[in-house]
Amino acid sequence: MNKNERFVKKITPKSVDFSKWYIEIIQKAELADYAPIKGMMIIRPYGYAIWENIQQLVDKRIKESGHSNAYFPLFIPESLLQKETEHLEGFAPEVAWVTHGGADELEERIAVRPTSEAIIGNMYAKWIKSWRDLPVLINQWANIVRWEKVTRPFLRTTEFLWQEGHTAHETKEEAQKETLMILSLYKEFVETELAIPVISGLKSEREKFAGALETYAIESMMSDGKALQMGTSHNLGQQFSKVFNIRFEDRNQNLQYVWQTSWGVSTRLVGALIMAHGDDSGLKFPPRVAPVQVVIVPIAIGDWKENVLPVAQNIKKELKEDGIRVKLDDREEFTPGWKFSEWEMRGVPLRLEIGPRDIKEKKVVIVRRDTGKKETVAWESLKKKVPEILKNIQKSMFEMVLKFQRENTFKVKDYEEFKDVLGSKKGFIETYWCGDRACEEKIKEDTMATIRVIRLEQDMEGNKGNCICCQKPAKNLVIFARAY
Amino acid sequence: MNKNERFVKKITPKSVDFSKWYIEIIQKAELADYAPIKGMMIIRPYGYAIWENIQQLVDKRIKESGHSNAYFPLFIPESLLQKETEHLEGFAPEVAWVTHGGADELEERIAVRPTSEAIIGNMYAKWIKSWRDLPVLINQWANIVRWEKVTRPFLRTTEFLWQEGHTAHETKEEAQKETLMILSLYKEFVETELAIPVISGLKSEREKFAGALETYAIESMMSDGKALQMGTSHNLGQQFSKVFNIRFEDRNQNLQYVWQTSWGVSTRLVGALIMAHGDDSGLKFPPRVAPVQVVIVPIAIGDWKENVLPVAQNIKKELKEDGIRVKLDDREEFTPGWKFSEWEMRGVPLRLEIGPRDIKEKKVVIVRRDTGKKETVAWESLKKKVPEILKNIQKSMFEMVLKFQRENTFKVKDYEEFKDVLGSKKGFIETYWCGDRACEEKIKEDTMATIRVIRLEQDMEGNKGNCICCQKPAKNLVIFARAY
Repeated sequence: MNKNERFVKKITPKSVDFSKWYIEIIQKAELADYAPIKGMMIIRPYGYAIWENIQQLVDKRIKESGHSNAYFPLFIPESLLQKETEHLEGFAPEVAWVTHGGADELEERIAVRPTSEAIIGNMYAKWIKSWRDLPVLINQWANIVRWEKVTRPFLRTTEFLWQEGHTAHETKEEAQKETLMILSLYKEFVETELAIPVISGLKSEREKFAGALETYAIESMMSDGKALQMGTSHNLGQQFSKVFNIRFEDRNQNLQYVWQTSWGVSTRLVGALIMAHGDDSGLKFPPRVAPVQVVIVPIAIGDWKENVLPVAQNIKKELKEDGIRVKLDDREEFTPGWKFSEWEMRGVPLRLEIGPRDIKEKKVVIVRRDTGKKETVAWESLKKKVPEILKNIQKSMFEMVLKFQRENTFKVKDYEEFKDVLGSKKGFIETYWCGDRACEEKIKEDTMATIRVIRLEQDMEGNKGNCICCQKPAKNLVIFARAY
Repeated sequence: MNKNERFVKKITPKSVDFSKWYIEIIQKAELADYAPIKGMMIIRPYGYAIWENIQQLVDKRIKESGHSNAYFPLFIPESLLQKETEHLEGFAPEVAWVTHGGADELEERIAVRPTSEAIIGNMYAKWIKSWRDLPVLINQWANIVRWEKVTRPFLRTTEFLWQEGHTAHETKEEAQKETLMILSLYKEFVETELAIPVISGLKSEREKFAGALETYAIESMMSDGKALQMGTSHNLGQQFSKVFNIRFEDRNQNLQYVWQTSWGVSTRLVGALIMAHGDDSGLKFPPRVAPVQVVIVPIAIGDWKENVLPVAQNIKKELKEDGIRVKLDDREEFTPGWKFSEWEMRGVPLRLEIGPRDIKEKKVVIVRRDTGKKETVAWESLKKKVPEILKNIQKSMFEMVLKFQRENTFKVKDYEEFKDVLGSKKGFIETYWCGDRACEEKIKEDTMATIRVIRLEQDMEGNKGNCICCQKPAKNLVIFARAY
């Protein structure tokens, strides 16, 4: 097992230096690599396979809830982006500008899309004429460019991949219903497929999307106690429809502005999977999105190629038939021990070991990545047993993160304790806030913590408290945390 | 049927003005719309659904042949693009340049990718060390920007969507094998799924990809007799690996440059579907990629909502269960006749009509888009019959285009007849060519026709002829045509 240990030792343990571990595991496991442009990354096949699984699972939900996909241009004329002032101010510092086409200087600068409200608003104004055209329920899968100063693979990159939904409705109520429906769709998706519990809620004015009426978000706790925004759903109100003149004739023949929403999740979710589930041995992917769900490692002793390999191949075939993403690692240049730790490091949920002795007994050894638990299973039960264990891993990974989140969500009695907790324990603080931006700013300055969400489930009537900062009567129950 | 006729009359008939028909049908059927940036388009949900079907069917084949997807950056530093001179010269006039990030001017100009050989070559140099790392078989789905002067929706747009495969191999033979394997994969895909026959072959030096050793292509005849390049597969040789220094230690511990290929198909294929299959009534989509395969139109007479609608809904449910993409058009504001012609115009392969009389007889009327043939089918046979008819439509659409292509592929006795044919009949000319660029240029100047492909199947030993232009002994059997 020497090679085995050496292999893992190449990575800084997560418990020693979380940031370093994050960067190292991404490169070592070949999830991504740095591009020759500052802040950009290459998503390598192993990392991209996770994104493809996420895409497929999100896309299914988006379509089942009545939306269709479309594709809008990468380029947005500066004049269009300028129409909504707040929106422009929010994004202008991050826009990459195209100024030349071939040898010619362009008459007008063109933005590489930092988000698509402007270009889509412009088209909706053309397409929407009557209440009969509503609702418009469109989503697109696209790349986005934001010229970020500080970047980190998957979490914040100059270019990233996402889906952005853009809808238009007859009434304010309908738009609000859509905004919240998507919020709960995202929550259900992340919890079911990524096995990461989320807290959903409203963003404060300070944290909301530039141009939105209200921004809702789902937030999760990473295993260093910091928060990651996992997805957002914006109620845009009529801010964009008034600026882009998106009007329709309503059921009483009056001209009205449409009510809009927009919402998205991105490749950032791959970063969340790494940070929420990983451990000192490396990655730990939940089965539902793992690129490889089961790896079969034949034990290369004696005439294994004649006896063991054909059986391993047959097991692979049988599991594959049932739709399981299975890989047979039959490379000869590596020892079984080396392979064990490599696939552990790469986060494969389940490992099947099969050696000459197992052939006689018609058994295999199954090892779970989440618990390390070993189990001997008869060949004939594998087709039944493997999906069961995978399901069980998915469930227990979710519960493990939920337990961690609960243990690291604190209630505090005063601002001193608030500062203490953020200084020592990390994690989330659930507390009261007066609603004033001044307190929000002060807390950020003192502790680097921001309001992640205003809880929607709060019963402020029964639970009234005082603002943790100024002691005035509170308006909201909120979650504070340091965030990525 | 008055409304019906009026509806279709809004579009210029294809037989009257092909180009106008093409543009009008795209907008009328809501496949795409013009963007507020010159040469860019919005792919609307009905058009994007076709692209999604194409993506899914191509992606499946790419993965089954051993390739994995990844994602490389949109931006390429000018210095990287400059490394391969021929490549740069080919693409420089079409590059959109980013010069500013936020308020800051960049130190080096950045190209919005016109293709990804340079950025991928740069990464392969880092990843590939040994023959054990080979072959590298990577594909990406991405958007591409080329600053084109003359554009046309789907066929040539400033931004388009595509897949680009980039592979690296140990030997020249292996790279050539890959190049041809992909060429036949594309041919099989287009013929099977898009029901469009293709001619595959080699490009002349004049027409090859900037930086490639050899370019292979598949070409199809559109229904105006012009050729459309449907996909390309390039053998890059060692041109890029020498420039980007992509070397590996071979099985004898010698350093070697890798052998590369690249290949792609794009949203242009949606244009091919429109132009190869459409007719005076509008679009005609082959069932395997049609966004809607079956439309059910209930005949709104009397108490149809109580009697007809529930049956229509049930038929929809049953067909959907079998994986058929079915739509029930129960809109009340349109007459059945209007709906018939709308769905004809939008190219739905099969229409089911059901009225009060059909309810009594437990039957429906089925109308094929390709032949217009009507048939009465009992409810109980629908689940069996509908997939059969769809399969049959797919087959007969392919045969119809194949027949057209054969009837419009000419052999000519001399250059006068060559010019005559291109002037009057349109279509392809299969003839001999000496291999000299001078003749190729002269023919282009005289007739606007180019060599679409050099036939691979040619038996030049047995079939030796003389160059159609200069009369010298021919080197190749080629296809000439005017092209998009």
